[in-house]
Amino acid sequence: MKNIYIIGVGLIGGSFALDMKKQYQNVTIYGIDNNPDHIKDAIVLGVIDKEATLNDLSKADLVIVAIPVDATVDLLPGLLDKVADHTLVIDVGSTKEDLCLKVKDHPNRRNFLASHPIAGTEFSGPSAAINDLFQGKTIIICDVEETAFKLQEKALKLFKDLGMRIRYMKPKSHDKHIAYMSHLSHISSFMLGKTVIEKEKNERDIFDMAGSGFESTVRLAKSSPEMWTPIFKQNKTNVIETLDEYISNLKQFKRLMEEEDFDGIYNEMKNTNYIKQILKGIE
Amino acid sequence: MKNIYIIGVGLIGGSFALDMKKQYQNVTIYGIDNNPDHIKDAIVLGVIDKEATLNDLSKADLVIVAIPVDATVDLLPGLLDKVADHTLVIDVGSTKEDLCLKVKDHPNRRNFLASHPIAGTEFSGPSAAINDLFQGKTIIICDVEETAFKLQEKALKLFKDLGMRIRYMKPKSHDKHIAYMSHLSHISSFMLGKTVIEKEKNERDIFDMAGSGFESTVRLAKSSPEMWTPIFKQNKTNVIETLDEYISNLKQFKRLMEEEDFDGIYNEMKNTNYIKQILKGIE
Repeated sequence: MKNIYIIGVGLIGGSFALDMKKQYQNVTIYGIDNNPDHIKDAIVLGVIDKEATLNDLSKADLVIVAIPVDATVDLLPGLLDKVADHTLVIDVGSTKEDLCLKVKDHPNRRNFLASHPIAGTEFSGPSAAINDLFQGKTIIICDVEETAFKLQEKALKLFKDLGMRIRYMKPKSHDKHIAYMSHLSHISSFMLGKTVIEKEKNERDIFDMAGSGFESTVRLAKSSPEMWTPIFKQNKTNVIETLDEYISNLKQFKRLMEEEDFDGIYNEMKNTNYIKQILKGIE
Repeated sequence: MKNIYIIGVGLIGGSFALDMKKQYQNVTIYGIDNNPDHIKDAIVLGVIDKEATLNDLSKADLVIVAIPVDATVDLLPGLLDKVADHTLVIDVGSTKEDLCLKVKDHPNRRNFLASHPIAGTEFSGPSAAINDLFQGKTIIICDVEETAFKLQEKALKLFKDLGMRIRYMKPKSHDKHIAYMSHLSHISSFMLGKTVIEKEKNERDIFDMAGSGFESTVRLAKSSPEMWTPIFKQNKTNVIETLDEYISNLKQFKRLMEEEDFDGIYNEMKNTNYIKQILKGIE
């Protein structure tokens, strides 16, 4: 690999760039971004080496598409038209079904690997890019058999070099489960933030009462709406299902409170403490 | 201060003990706990110096009551019966109205200061006690004028020595606002954990999909049901109000999803990003 193109030099694209520069000698990292300020910042910060355009992609050994998921679905077919036979194209989006469907019959489908690294922070833009973001994290690969075998190998080497743990899933299954494991957390956090802001907006002093618990629970409410709106749009059916179940659990908790069934409240919490065992695995 | 008694040698009581041992020379920290294992562990861990009983409290210069809030309401009147004129008694509970009401007319009300340090972790028991837990944290003092002036001074010095920022509130106002800033976060986190566990319990592999976002949002679901059930019981009315508003915001988000109003979804998130400015103050 010599010529690496990052489309979207934000948190994820930029963090890939930083890790690959550290990991590989003699690579040149080209950045492509709609926002000229992002390109400028990414060069100043040493995240990318040079600016490029979509017309340069025929020279690419690797293209990483790290833009909002709706933009990826729009861009990918035309992008696959441009690439050479040996070029590996990967995306990093949080939804996989629409994208895999879109390029299903593309003559260069074999150049593409659909992937989703479960890594990130609540920040965005090139200044959010950090070293070792992917170390020890899971990356989910979808429809692996649709990718050329040599390009699969190239991708797996890259993910392993960056410290990632690889899991394979079908796009439908990915989108269903990620709605529970990630998308719902974001909504619960955004709505918690909204509820507290609405209540307390005229009493700024009240935020002195915020402790690390509130901070941790509301952290995802800092996330980028530009990135998350298209994710919710593409994963609408699954997300609505998770919301239904979450709301119904909250209503039941409220009902127990109203009925003063505090043994019931205790049991709700005691049973959910099981999350400790589950999280041990990812700590 | 020479003789300090900690009732409940868990996360909060134990962390007070550790900081005071570091801060003050020549103090002896006595521990009182229903659970003999807690006392044993706390001595082995160097959290307390000696075991004591409630009958020893007449010798106390300072008593910190750090047990579940229902137990505090039961214990405090009898405890105030036992203490000497110069003894300061403080509690650290997450609800204040019931407690302040309970001791309102106690002849030794002036020995008691109602306080709530906004500090903690999701862990519990003596092994959860840590140094510097209170450094830079807010402590809320309620009904300060009900405490003897000399004992107020003693408490303020202690809180400042431990690095805390002091705020004064009425108990009613404390309980109302803390429902938003802390109690609701715990419920949103517990119910998130419950929703995901129910869905995914037969598919343990799915938890490989959990990233730092899920972990942060669900962290409080590890909290102790023994501690939280009485908090929700004492703050029932306020907690139900916060739950009503939270559920209504989630339902509105779901409605926007169903109507495919993704501009609306975008705006919900964009407006809530304001939480960044708010949290800056507490970081």
